[in-house]
Amino acid sequence: MASIAESMELIKRGADEILLEEALVKKLQKGEPLRVKAGFDPTAPDLHLGHTVLINKLRQFQELGHEVQFLIGDFTAMIGDPTGKSATRPPLTRDEILENAKTYEHQVFKILDPEKTTVLFNSSWMGGMSAADMIQLAAKHTVARMLERDDFNKRYKGGQSISIHEFLYPLVQGYDSVAMRADVELGGTDQKFNLLVGRQLQEAYGQEPQVALTMPILEGLDGVQKMSKSLGNYIGITDAPDEMFGKLMSISDELMWRYFELLSFRAMSEIEALQRDVGEGANPRDVKVQLAEELVGRFHDPAAATKAHENFVARFRKGVMPDDMPEKELPAGDGMQIANLLKEAGLVASTSEALRMLKQGAVKINGEKVEDRELSFRAGESNIYQVGKRRFARVTLV
Amino acid sequence: MASIAESMELIKRGADEILLEEALVKKLQKGEPLRVKAGFDPTAPDLHLGHTVLINKLRQFQELGHEVQFLIGDFTAMIGDPTGKSATRPPLTRDEILENAKTYEHQVFKILDPEKTTVLFNSSWMGGMSAADMIQLAAKHTVARMLERDDFNKRYKGGQSISIHEFLYPLVQGYDSVAMRADVELGGTDQKFNLLVGRQLQEAYGQEPQVALTMPILEGLDGVQKMSKSLGNYIGITDAPDEMFGKLMSISDELMWRYFELLSFRAMSEIEALQRDVGEGANPRDVKVQLAEELVGRFHDPAAATKAHENFVARFRKGVMPDDMPEKELPAGDGMQIANLLKEAGLVASTSEALRMLKQGAVKINGEKVEDRELSFRAGESNIYQVGKRRFARVTLV
Repeated sequence: MASIAESMELIKRGADEILLEEALVKKLQKGEPLRVKAGFDPTAPDLHLGHTVLINKLRQFQELGHEVQFLIGDFTAMIGDPTGKSATRPPLTRDEILENAKTYEHQVFKILDPEKTTVLFNSSWMGGMSAADMIQLAAKHTVARMLERDDFNKRYKGGQSISIHEFLYPLVQGYDSVAMRADVELGGTDQKFNLLVGRQLQEAYGQEPQVALTMPILEGLDGVQKMSKSLGNYIGITDAPDEMFGKLMSISDELMWRYFELLSFRAMSEIEALQRDVGEGANPRDVKVQLAEELVGRFHDPAAATKAHENFVARFRKGVMPDDMPEKELPAGDGMQIANLLKEAGLVASTSEALRMLKQGAVKINGEKVEDRELSFRAGESNIYQVGKRRFARVTLV
Repeated sequence: MASIAESMELIKRGADEILLEEALVKKLQKGEPLRVKAGFDPTAPDLHLGHTVLINKLRQFQELGHEVQFLIGDFTAMIGDPTGKSATRPPLTRDEILENAKTYEHQVFKILDPEKTTVLFNSSWMGGMSAADMIQLAAKHTVARMLERDDFNKRYKGGQSISIHEFLYPLVQGYDSVAMRADVELGGTDQKFNLLVGRQLQEAYGQEPQVALTMPILEGLDGVQKMSKSLGNYIGITDAPDEMFGKLMSISDELMWRYFELLSFRAMSEIEALQRDVGEGANPRDVKVQLAEELVGRFHDPAAATKAHENFVARFRKGVMPDDMPEKELPAGDGMQIANLLKEAGLVASTSEALRMLKQGAVKINGEKVEDRELSFRAGESNIYQVGKRRFARVTLV
């Protein structure tokens, strides 16, 4: 078993904040497996690498011998949006939730050890809770403290309406920690307030309060905005091997090190050695290949990773893809059409040349031939564009 | 059956506000008995005349053919004070509540017609409500609107803590109106906000919103502060006939007309005739006797009222009590001892004279001999003090 110091080093890797570190040390000193909670919304089971930052941290806890409690917040999902304002949040049925949960499990067990993972549904305890219990729970927190939460504060001051039930959701999330007797809860930095509600409620219910550990939000392919499906700058964990490999090869060298820290399972000492190599002249592209192979191998398998690498090399014709590819940022506006993008990136002299090259099949994106002149790109998208045999550019729309 | 105009005249008698009057007229025009709701807290079943202001209004609705729904708010009473801050609000058991309800019924049926009264307990519907339903209910109101309620606003701005469950109680009260399908809800002026929540929730649940009718808070014997047990300026409806009669005879002429409007069952036309009589020289004391007899008769019986009157007259020795008794207001400080009070009121020259007169049995309060030199009075108390045969004063401590 790892020493406390080794445990703390691994736990702190990439973490944004641990509240409180001393409390975590104390819990580790007991020498018992800790119950590590992370909550997931069953409405969006289609994970991208951004989601896996947290799941990787859960895996590290498992490597240290702890128990992961993977909580699916189905109770609130079954309520939907009771104000009826959001058409995108209809209540989910029990069947839909169970199906989503299966999809979740299928995805997360590519990272987590199923033997050390318990999947829980908060409807198990919240479903049986009465209105009277809810009132008792609501008595354990104050209006003023809830209004300190960033988003509530902004909305209240900005005259935007906050429905009273929105004050109850953080309490439900906090009560989950009570019901689960969580030792540690993980969340994104945007979850810090809610994780602290959990601490406070556990104390109110006479339990030792959980440690709150926040993980940073992962940047998308553009290296600037958070990875998100709606921004289009994401790598889905079900992306095909070639697509995943190509997207990873398209990221900047700087972002590569960030991804190594948060996404790779390699020890930090190995990653630091790679950084030294690059500092001493090694080609960062070769290091990027290692990252891409690791991640494709994780979400598919090692053979698929090797094949994706070979395909990538073949597409770019071994040796042709320049090491010093120009990198450009272009304003995306409301979306940019392919011909215009190629012209603005300096890969063609005019949009009519661009259209001609497209027609001839001489345009590739991340090594794949494209012919559709209607193709359009938006802010956050970052790709390697190729025209003919020798003209390359990595273009990021901002 | 009364015409709409007659109904409205009786309903408006003494009322502070009716929201909305047009809506009430519309409801009356349907010609069906209305469901008239009034909520009562089962923790304090010992009623005084202040509480009866509302009950009298309920009775007027009954006289007009409507149905009274006397709601006992046992659901929240069984929760008590979940913050544990108030030692005076322990949760009540079901048995205690049923016992209190019996006491309530015994008292209110001196005013209300049992045939047209339904006693309801809100635990009937709230007890079966789930946490999920509570969340749905909470979604129907906003934080900003709740913070507009006077007391919440003051506490929030003053940095005093408001527990989140306190936002749920007005919603529970409002939901009661939904469950009861109330047409009209009565409350004190301090209940206006909550009555309007009921209107709003009924609309949210697709019902025709109730009319909110607020009644003023009755002044106590001092004619200034609200009638309240803790201020000592009250007349309990279980007070003995002589005590009730004496207290009523001690009020000022001005307050007498207020009590006539809010407490007497006489028609306003009769009361206006009495006012004209006094304006033309009739003795207000004789009018006050009529009020005292009516109220003692209501809470005891007509024979008891007659006897109380006779006793009162006998105590004051027929004809001795002056018509133009001096009225005084004295500062109560932390409480005023009898000897000091008699001196400050100018009924004796010194406290030593006061003590001597007490010893001789020459001091009376509201016609009853007192000898205890330790007797002490506090703010809100208003009595007729008599020393010897001819010295009288009505003294109110402020």
